Amino acid sequence: MKIALIGAGNLATNLGRALVEAGHVVCQVYSRTQVSADALALKLESRGVSDLAEVVTDAQLYIVALKDSALGEVLPILIKGREYALWVHTAGSVPISIWAEYGLKHYGVFYPMQTFSKAREVSFSDIPFFLEASGKMEMDILRSVATSMSRNVHEASSEQRRYLHLSAVFACNFANAMYTASARLLEEHGLSFDAMLPLIDETARKVHALHPADAQTGPAVRYDRNVIDKHLALLADHPLYRELYELTSRIIHEEKD
Amino acid sequence: MKIALIGAGNLATNLGRALVEAGHVVCQVYSRTQVSADALALKLESRGVSDLAEVVTDAQLYIVALKDSALGEVLPILIKGREYALWVHTAGSVPISIWAEYGLKHYGVFYPMQTFSKAREVSFSDIPFFLEASGKMEMDILRSVATSMSRNVHEASSEQRRYLHLSAVFACNFANAMYTASARLLEEHGLSFDAMLPLIDETARKVHALHPADAQTGPAVRYDRNVIDKHLALLADHPLYRELYELTSRIIHEEKD
Repeated sequence: MKIALIGAGNLATNLGRALVEAGHVVCQVYSRTQVSADALALKLESRGVSDLAEVVTDAQLYIVALKDSALGEVLPILIKGREYALWVHTAGSVPISIWAEYGLKHYGVFYPMQTFSKAREVSFSDIPFFLEASGKMEMDILRSVATSMSRNVHEASSEQRRYLHLSAVFACNFANAMYTASARLLEEHGLSFDAMLPLIDETARKVHALHPADAQTGPAVRYDRNVIDKHLALLADHPLYRELYELTSRIIHEEKD
Repeated sequence: MKIALIGAGNLATNLGRALVEAGHVVCQVYSRTQVSADALALKLESRGVSDLAEVVTDAQLYIVALKDSALGEVLPILIKGREYALWVHTAGSVPISIWAEYGLKHYGVFYPMQTFSKAREVSFSDIPFFLEASGKMEMDILRSVATSMSRNVHEASSEQRRYLHLSAVFACNFANAMYTASARLLEEHGLSFDAMLPLIDETARKVHALHPADAQTGPAVRYDRNVIDKHLALLADHPLYRELYELTSRIIHEEKD
């Protein structure tokens, strides 16, 4: 399978590595800037390009891993002359119908639901992949590529995928925002964030066994107004954290009932 | 060390188990209700009482693990006639000075920073304990009890402890609230929360290696207005989640700068 990777961001970087490790050939990496394209191409023993006109025309699979807002601009130019290949995007919130307007025959969605940073190599073996395709043949190809990297491969409609993505923002990005607030508050008082790691780990492990609503502890679920008020007072200089504390405590308390 | 455990909630249950496993004797468990006292006493091969007058007078260490708001009511009654023992509480946000008014000689704070539920047995070996004591002898005793359960034992002032507790609410309770929101949204659309577990695990693992601010991904940190607006529209029927989404995205975006 001759694959062209369109994008060189966090997701493209991690996906590219996993594809190559699984034995696929990434024949080319496109990025808006040559530096990014070359940086990733080097890791994948591939070739980097930053001019859309230079993207190969003979790849069998084009994997588009760009910021959602870039798709409308890049795709019309890119697809022209490459209509016979299989095209997929990797975005949680972009429906499969985006491909229809380009007169493609073979298209789909290839969504690995995970948090990717360039600085961190992620093991793909249990990453959930959610696939959607224009037909059975296309789905078979995508499933074969996904299962070469992960044992956790599913089909999902565009409608399901947008709720998966929304839920992932809460479970991952927003949980991480809570870690960040925790780190900032500790650092301001000369304390190390490392002290939180056993707690963070147990909080994550716990929801493998208990529903998160049943796993909840702390002042909000006990409605310990005494502690809540002390904490709000400590946040006097952090109006946004204070607002976040009040709102999240209210949500925890109301969900209990 | 003859220990009386005052309280039979989530923390007392887990701490009691760990004390017994470490070879200590919990001679008595007090709870406001006899059912709770007996339930925990049974697990600890101890005796349960629900009448403050029946609490033993000859324990060497009294560990008070009650809701903060119950302390003011219970302690004056409980301490009377037991002033020569070592008294500790387990609360993140209660200062050590609370003991001063009772004319005690030996007192301190014994704070295991972890999320405890009765339904889940937690390994204590890497739980951070934060200790504070009225003197060196008392600190030596508390350190010896804590290190019999955990290899992660520290001293912390009341001032440090209240910031540890506040930060723990963000890193644990609020992160768990984000898991709960994620679970609710998935369940409403017939999707399983299990799909989120690899993502939740990686989000937690990631901050062992990267500062959470550097680990952040997703639409808010990219300021992908297109995705953010789609997500807000999906939350039309969840006004509190919508508010949480907007506020947290704003915090993530502003912290980036």
